Amino acid sequence: MPVYHAPVADTLFVMNDVLGLERYNNLPAFAEVSPDVLEAVLGEAGRFAEDVFFPLNQSGDREGCHRAEDGSVTTPKGYREAYARFREAGWGGLSAEAAYGGQGLPHTLAAAVNEFLSSANMAFAMYPGLTRGAIAALQLHGTDEQKQLYLPKMVDGIWTGTMNLTEPHCGTDLGLLRTKAVPEGDGSYRITGQKIFISAGEHDLSDNIIHLVLARIEGSPEGVKGISLFVVPKFLPDASGEAGARNSLSCGSIEEKMGIHANATCVMNYDGATGWLVGEADKGLRAMFTMMNEARLGVGVQGLAISEIAYQNAVAYARERIQGRSLSGTKAPDKKADPIIVHPDVRRMLMTIRAINEAGRALILWTALKGDLFHLSDDAKEREAADDWMGLMTPVIKGVLTDKGFDNTVMAQQVFGGHGYIAEWGMEQYVRDARIAQIYEGANGIQALDLVGRKLALNNGRAIQAFFAEVGAFCEAHRADERMAPFTKGLKKGLNDLQAATLWLMGNAMTKPDNAGAASTDYMHLFGLVALGYMWGQMAKAANDKLAGGETSDTAFLEAKLATGRFFMDRIMPESSAHLARISSGSTSTMALDAASF
Amino acid sequence: MPVYHAPVADTLFVMNDVLGLERYNNLPAFAEVSPDVLEAVLGEAGRFAEDVFFPLNQSGDREGCHRAEDGSVTTPKGYREAYARFREAGWGGLSAEAAYGGQGLPHTLAAAVNEFLSSANMAFAMYPGLTRGAIAALQLHGTDEQKQLYLPKMVDGIWTGTMNLTEPHCGTDLGLLRTKAVPEGDGSYRITGQKIFISAGEHDLSDNIIHLVLARIEGSPEGVKGISLFVVPKFLPDASGEAGARNSLSCGSIEEKMGIHANATCVMNYDGATGWLVGEADKGLRAMFTMMNEARLGVGVQGLAISEIAYQNAVAYARERIQGRSLSGTKAPDKKADPIIVHPDVRRMLMTIRAINEAGRALILWTALKGDLFHLSDDAKEREAADDWMGLMTPVIKGVLTDKGFDNTVMAQQVFGGHGYIAEWGMEQYVRDARIAQIYEGANGIQALDLVGRKLALNNGRAIQAFFAEVGAFCEAHRADERMAPFTKGLKKGLNDLQAATLWLMGNAMTKPDNAGAASTDYMHLFGLVALGYMWGQMAKAANDKLAGGETSDTAFLEAKLATGRFFMDRIMPESSAHLARISSGSTSTMALDAASF
Repeated sequence: MPVYHAPVADTLFVMNDVLGLERYNNLPAFAEVSPDVLEAVLGEAGRFAEDVFFPLNQSGDREGCHRAEDGSVTTPKGYREAYARFREAGWGGLSAEAAYGGQGLPHTLAAAVNEFLSSANMAFAMYPGLTRGAIAALQLHGTDEQKQLYLPKMVDGIWTGTMNLTEPHCGTDLGLLRTKAVPEGDGSYRITGQKIFISAGEHDLSDNIIHLVLARIEGSPEGVKGISLFVVPKFLPDASGEAGARNSLSCGSIEEKMGIHANATCVMNYDGATGWLVGEADKGLRAMFTMMNEARLGVGVQGLAISEIAYQNAVAYARERIQGRSLSGTKAPDKKADPIIVHPDVRRMLMTIRAINEAGRALILWTALKGDLFHLSDDAKEREAADDWMGLMTPVIKGVLTDKGFDNTVMAQQVFGGHGYIAEWGMEQYVRDARIAQIYEGANGIQALDLVGRKLALNNGRAIQAFFAEVGAFCEAHRADERMAPFTKGLKKGLNDLQAATLWLMGNAMTKPDNAGAASTDYMHLFGLVALGYMWGQMAKAANDKLAGGETSDTAFLEAKLATGRFFMDRIMPESSAHLARISSGSTSTMALDAASF
Repeated sequence: MPVYHAPVADTLFVMNDVLGLERYNNLPAFAEVSPDVLEAVLGEAGRFAEDVFFPLNQSGDREGCHRAEDGSVTTPKGYREAYARFREAGWGGLSAEAAYGGQGLPHTLAAAVNEFLSSANMAFAMYPGLTRGAIAALQLHGTDEQKQLYLPKMVDGIWTGTMNLTEPHCGTDLGLLRTKAVPEGDGSYRITGQKIFISAGEHDLSDNIIHLVLARIEGSPEGVKGISLFVVPKFLPDASGEAGARNSLSCGSIEEKMGIHANATCVMNYDGATGWLVGEADKGLRAMFTMMNEARLGVGVQGLAISEIAYQNAVAYARERIQGRSLSGTKAPDKKADPIIVHPDVRRMLMTIRAINEAGRALILWTALKGDLFHLSDDAKEREAADDWMGLMTPVIKGVLTDKGFDNTVMAQQVFGGHGYIAEWGMEQYVRDARIAQIYEGANGIQALDLVGRKLALNNGRAIQAFFAEVGAFCEAHRADERMAPFTKGLKKGLNDLQAATLWLMGNAMTKPDNAGAASTDYMHLFGLVALGYMWGQMAKAANDKLAGGETSDTAFLEAKLATGRFFMDRIMPESSAHLARISSGSTSTMALDAASF
């Protein structure tokens, strides 16, 4: 019963009219990406998501993954076939390097495709998603031999990847990890230990699973300075590079969890498994962060993706379901009641979700473009600025878009009334699925600490100062433009609150670090409001310019865009003042109780 | 693995020190309720919840209810035995009239007991909860004969009750209902139609199930003015008043839903079932509202109850789980890391939940006491004021405490990181269970409309004016008291915002009703902040007085109470300004899009 239509038109608006991707056609990955090609690829990806991934979403949730006594894991019915079609169509290697069989297209495009796939079937999209993270880590930190051995097969998708960080007693605090690596003398290591919460840790979709595993080499220091990264394949590659002998690792169990049932979340046992070092010894955390940053942006995309499909279904229901009459007079006199979309409180919910989704999509694509520029630009200043933006926005995209994404999904479920609570309507699955995105790849509180404790002060605050200057200049540049006034006014107010909060932190967190900790989540959300508000400013400008140029046939789309942006400024941006008030209240009452008094 | 301890001490603080229940010992129900008796009853209820209901919560969620082909429904293992113990102990009749076998104790006490039972096992507590609603409706609207026939058995619990409102095509808009009632000529009616989402509609806990069913008598007007209430027992009472012949009604299926799996949510088919009118013909909605108001307060209690058990488990986990070091220096040098309760962002979550729960408990008990006074007081003015307070607070308690309750439960789950997503830890069940409370008994958007569209204007705003006067006078009376300053300052700010929002509505909603609709949810939450803030003011006063009197041995409890209240004012009350800003932005951007443009 649920519906899904990939938001191709909105994605094209951001890519063409807001980002102006054509400007970058001097860069290799962008050379072929004309607006026509973009439209064709996104259209094709949208149809693939709708036709192949989406029909398996509800059935996959119900069936889940099953582990047999031999430790093998079966994915739900239809998943093997659908994954084969995914591989054949080459979606996994969209933005991978051509040298390894990829299509070498921009990450910006891959991010959009990832949104469609995650909307259609988040649990399924995680299998290739984790592979992409493992590819990124091997590409940056692996030896040439490792790259030649693993990357072509992982880009193809015939081998998949995982990341193994968490252990029963440690997740956030990886310094505590106990998994051991003992050198064999031949360049390989024996890996022993238990990892938990390993998404896609074992399954039947691919011929081999390439585990990237954090472990401590015997004799290395305790804490985070003694952690190394290893590649530990399920089947050891033989002389010809094909999957050979079974490695001594196995899935001990799969977790019974709230959602994403179609993705196998495994306890992985390494019993003297053979692995090879990736990157330098004891520098594993750095390599892992390559995967993690890739993964965190991907999780932000999941937040948007579930919010989007939840929104679409809520809209469809609100148009169909008749109940009560409009406060401003009957709207459907031929029916016994009006469709509930006439009710302002239903509108409030739909508009809230929509306003966050459209800005979230723009923020993700804007940031993905920075990622492309960081890799491709020949201008060192541009690369630095792109890197600064990504560092700042990674925790914001992960933390804010998944928190808002979950809230939005709950709101969309609410539009259904009692039917939202019933499994067959599909909404409660979206809520259960969306919930994990706030937790994994660093719980959102950790994202907030990364932003406040690390990213703000980096390079003497260069990134945040550049952000303030950019947003401030945007407000200033369009201050006199009457069509832009609703946007610049709200954005400026949010920016002022964010700057005040930043100043407060500078003055109060050095002397009392608890002030930073107690402020962090509010600061992250305040930052998110301004970043999303800035996207609304940029989208409004693009829409106004297009309307003023009279060159468009899509007036209704652009007018709806502007109305949605005004709603954001009226209804969502005002949260900034509450965040500022909380932040500047300090940590005294937060920390007042003894642990025993709770 | 989950834990639960009934919050008896906190409940006693509210009853004895804030409400001063002893003042009312001139009223019949209160005569026996000395502080000693209160403590004994609450202690016993707490132990019963902990020992009998709680151990079946997780297993009941996993097993769920099962319908056999003959339409009979089996509750999870252990539920029949536990229900029998519940009956024997007389918990169902705690506040029921002695004339029908009840204990005649105050509703205030029953509300507290209901919190404990709902924390321990919400799905289970719903069976007697629905029976209480049905008892209330029969007591107020039934004939003497009906009361004699049904009430003693329902108070005993050997018969249970349900409410049947919703049909597939109508929930909120009951005017659309189609279930028909045809008079038989002997005073009975034949009821035909389908009802959905009927909680406890069929099960194996009781000897009979007394359905209260809304239906339209043949020939009655369309819309809400043609709805009547009927009592339709599963087994027709025989001449001796015992369960006799099977009535023509059956459970067609049970819904597969997100949570509260241990409660059977039934599709009920009435195929010419025999029923009797309750109250006047065509006046069924009024009678149903008696049940509904009772039920809405009960649902508010569920919001608090799940938030409370989620909080307790999050605290236990945060004390145990070690991860990272405190920002202000190592706190557990003997361990490899500090317990996560040292981290300000974890504290922020725990304190937020705690601050809302403690005030929510006070607000529920304060309102339940008004309910007792409305029934028992011999002062007409006091009865009127009590009724006004209840009318105003019913939607606030239902809407705000369930919205906040769900948010709190999600927050408590977040404290667990990845473990929160895994079924065995129990947290994800609390989230799934808490979700329904925002939806049933009138989705929270309907509560907001009830408050804004009905309750505010009733009797020329008498209730809201009295509330403003009471809270304003409280702030004024304690303005000069330095110990009260943190409380009166925050409360006064919230009250000002609420008054401004009320004025805005008065000026803008008459001419444009969409302004009221678009404001309603924010207004309800703004109202909730002030109501909870007022409870904090009252609790702070009681705590300060007790500390100043030096008469207490429980200084730590009282100091923690004050610290938690300060946190509320620092961190939660500031949301009021965002609500006011949203409300006064009007409905233009909310209503701007065509339905087709979504």
